[in-house]
Amino acid sequence: MERSIGFIGLGRMGLPMAHNLLKAGAALRVYNRSKQKAAELATNGAVVCEAAVDTIVPGGVVISMLADDAALEQTFTPALAARLGPGGLHISMSTISPATAGKMAAIHQAAGAAYVASPVFGGPEQTAAAQIWICVSGEESAKQRARPILEKLGRDVEDMGTDPAAANVVKLCGNFLIAAATEALAEAFTVAEKQGVNLTAMNRMLCEKLFGGAVYQRYGSRVLSREHLPAGFQLLLGLKDMRLTRQMADAAKTPMPVVDVVFNRLLSQAAKNRGDQHWTGLASGAREDAGLPA
Amino acid sequence: MERSIGFIGLGRMGLPMAHNLLKAGAALRVYNRSKQKAAELATNGAVVCEAAVDTIVPGGVVISMLADDAALEQTFTPALAARLGPGGLHISMSTISPATAGKMAAIHQAAGAAYVASPVFGGPEQTAAAQIWICVSGEESAKQRARPILEKLGRDVEDMGTDPAAANVVKLCGNFLIAAATEALAEAFTVAEKQGVNLTAMNRMLCEKLFGGAVYQRYGSRVLSREHLPAGFQLLLGLKDMRLTRQMADAAKTPMPVVDVVFNRLLSQAAKNRGDQHWTGLASGAREDAGLPA
Repeated sequence: MERSIGFIGLGRMGLPMAHNLLKAGAALRVYNRSKQKAAELATNGAVVCEAAVDTIVPGGVVISMLADDAALEQTFTPALAARLGPGGLHISMSTISPATAGKMAAIHQAAGAAYVASPVFGGPEQTAAAQIWICVSGEESAKQRARPILEKLGRDVEDMGTDPAAANVVKLCGNFLIAAATEALAEAFTVAEKQGVNLTAMNRMLCEKLFGGAVYQRYGSRVLSREHLPAGFQLLLGLKDMRLTRQMADAAKTPMPVVDVVFNRLLSQAAKNRGDQHWTGLASGAREDAGLPA
Repeated sequence: MERSIGFIGLGRMGLPMAHNLLKAGAALRVYNRSKQKAAELATNGAVVCEAAVDTIVPGGVVISMLADDAALEQTFTPALAARLGPGGLHISMSTISPATAGKMAAIHQAAGAAYVASPVFGGPEQTAAAQIWICVSGEESAKQRARPILEKLGRDVEDMGTDPAAANVVKLCGNFLIAAATEALAEAFTVAEKQGVNLTAMNRMLCEKLFGGAVYQRYGSRVLSREHLPAGFQLLLGLKDMRLTRQMADAAKTPMPVVDVVFNRLLSQAAKNRGDQHWTGLASGAREDAGLPA
């Protein structure tokens, strides 16, 4: 693994990632808009930078993990790509739209630098345990350079192709599948509750046995318990991802009727000031539609 | 396990079930509309009956596994319930509406007989291997009597409560969850295909790893391969179940927008004479909407 690495964005995901890289022996130059989190890393040997550009060494490697498209575009300007320059590599781990990924890749290409998309599946806890799944896409040699670093951050690195946008397409599709599963579970549990079914037994049969796997087991229990706090992944972030998925569907000329359903569910919860709930809170929509309390 | 059992309905599911009961030492009296399948069981020791009513012994146990609500109501008339009479037990394994289950339970109650709903999850292969999951609901003592028999037919018997309709609610909800997952997978793979993503890697990441479990692994691969023949579970049967789910949602005053999406997908495929495909054929809807071949 390359030792000298810049790291931009120390949020709920970025911070544990940076910790893992330090543990793996990296010499990190970190930057975060709010300085407090960076200070925490300084005690572990990271160099705290005053500006994002200072994390970058010409021809070096920089990782970014930011909240959304706007944060990435505002932070990673053409000036930063120019500083990265020929031989440089940006490993971009944020969940952003494929369109923005394409724009970012073009900015880097113009500066002679490489851009690899590496969005991840998993929450802060799995990130801390280096158990996230990482999707990667971009030019082959850039992916090869990124891989040893990414392997320190997750349990698995899956290659989605050479288009820098491809990994972001898969990330949005994955979050869409989770939202669709949550909505279907909410509809199913709601219609069953109104008919007096033993919901615990239903959850055991459908989520743990028939479906199985982490998503149905975890989300089935959350939909059933209606405990949407604390939020590992906030509803507002899920809403953002379904908004990006709708835009992607529009751009790719692919009607996706279930995306519209889950987008509107999340939007409605946001309108009811529940944006800070875990995004399983979208399940409240089916309940309230049926005259049950959220 | 009670040895003397009547068995009505020797279709793709009923026939392997009857075989399993014979293997377990049951003395079966079987009836099927078409005689050929019954003859096959006769060589294994079953008594083939000329009429459904002849499978029934007063106070005994009879199992039915029929294609739909109409088949069950036409076959299992009040006259049959009367012959079953006090102390009798009907184990009703068909996938029918909760409303029909309620009607059937009332007919049996009027005759002094017990009615237990026992719909199953799993296809003909899993049925032959006695690996299906069985949902059961009804009066406690009737369920206790049914359980040793059901345990010979499946890997697991899950109790959904005392309402005879409850197990049928769970069965319809389970099939709805499968249809919803198929639709979401179809939308996701379609939008990704149009953007040049490596779909095999996407399937591995999303269906095998992130979701995991039998449904996503099996249905993800089928949606991806677009091989909807041979059909373990036909599209027309899935359409029937989503029709029942819509009726159930209406009766239970529970809006279920995703049920409407998958019902219309299946209906459209039926309109295109694809009703004999596996019900993953509903995935063709998202593809054709996006201008791709089915």
